[in-house]
Amino acid sequence: MRLKNKPWARPLIAANPQYVVTEPAKLRGAWQTRFERQAPLYLELGMGKGRFIIETAKRHPENNYIGIDLQPVAVGIALKKQLEAQLPNLQLVVADGAALTSIFAPAELAGMYLNFSDPWPKNRHEKRRLTYKTFLAQYQQVVVPGGYLEFKTDNQGLFEYSLTSMNNFGLHFERVWLDLHADPEVTDNVMTEYEERFSSKGQPIYKLIVRFPAEETEQITDEGKTGNN
Amino acid sequence: MRLKNKPWARPLIAANPQYVVTEPAKLRGAWQTRFERQAPLYLELGMGKGRFIIETAKRHPENNYIGIDLQPVAVGIALKKQLEAQLPNLQLVVADGAALTSIFAPAELAGMYLNFSDPWPKNRHEKRRLTYKTFLAQYQQVVVPGGYLEFKTDNQGLFEYSLTSMNNFGLHFERVWLDLHADPEVTDNVMTEYEERFSSKGQPIYKLIVRFPAEETEQITDEGKTGNN
Repeated sequence: MRLKNKPWARPLIAANPQYVVTEPAKLRGAWQTRFERQAPLYLELGMGKGRFIIETAKRHPENNYIGIDLQPVAVGIALKKQLEAQLPNLQLVVADGAALTSIFAPAELAGMYLNFSDPWPKNRHEKRRLTYKTFLAQYQQVVVPGGYLEFKTDNQGLFEYSLTSMNNFGLHFERVWLDLHADPEVTDNVMTEYEERFSSKGQPIYKLIVRFPAEETEQITDEGKTGNN
Repeated sequence: MRLKNKPWARPLIAANPQYVVTEPAKLRGAWQTRFERQAPLYLELGMGKGRFIIETAKRHPENNYIGIDLQPVAVGIALKKQLEAQLPNLQLVVADGAALTSIFAPAELAGMYLNFSDPWPKNRHEKRRLTYKTFLAQYQQVVVPGGYLEFKTDNQGLFEYSLTSMNNFGLHFERVWLDLHADPEVTDNVMTEYEERFSSKGQPIYKLIVRFPAEETEQITDEGKTGNN
């Protein structure tokens, strides 16, 4: 969603290059150098005000995290939280998600999160939806084969669309929820700001976890024979 | 759902062999002989009281239809409606859906419908769900390559499960609805008895249309070259 401009956002970003990357293409293939230690790297594309990625990074110090947003205001708000939390396993990035393959090298990411992306409900805007096939193709390039993409939304139309789009792209569904918050077995859900606001109104939250195809290599079976290509 | 026994059902079925098949395996590969004319053949597996398949057959005289149910009571109730409607393009069958490949020859069906199947919510009953992979494998054998399966349910758990199961099986999603009756573009929906009762309570109806893979054959392209296998 479009945020109201905050005049302090850009100066705050400029003053904190240790937490915010503004020229991400320069780090392509070398993102691990931005963290205290090497660890599996997860990306949230469109982090908004950053609550999800900051809380997730807090809970999982064993991983590294990157939150990307196009809007400096969003990154500025997330940065305020990171300045409090000082998480060594979190980096924030001002960038356009459409440029993902110029920001990350092939298989540089262990997995990805898309939370409450813009639904772009009009048919003529289909190509802007972050689950459109050209985006999925980019994700597949930068995420390790067999890696996961987790997608949450409260938007029924976007979820219907994304189920179809991800299936048609050949992604493997691990799990689908049509009312995430009603599932008593889900105890580790990290809510975004938006999610908390909407689910408190009784709106169901949809979630889909998909896996990218594993690397296609010639398989040697038990018998020593060559399997199907 | 389990129906109350009706003592008249079995005698009514026995008295109307022109509309009801009780030994379906004998017609394997020869179902078109049961109809007035040859036409694409569609099956509803688990037709219940038959409202859906009878109304669909009425609206589409250009196709042939078969309604199967395991319960003679259900078939008896559907038969009463067929005795009024006298549709030449509809046959009813008392049979167990688990025996589908012994009832139909490969590719004998143009498409299939599953409406409000038993959700079998317990994990240990997963194999009984009509969208479990062993059932999908049977459907794929009897439906023509590239043919459609249409699935409706009001059961959230079954729909979540089926999205995953059908994706994992390699079926191609054509369209997903998370609230079918709220879509103003859907004007041709035929409701089952169950659907009308449940949707009138405000319960959303879920629908998924999937396509079976097209036949995998060596393709000759425009250029006369051999395509990918």
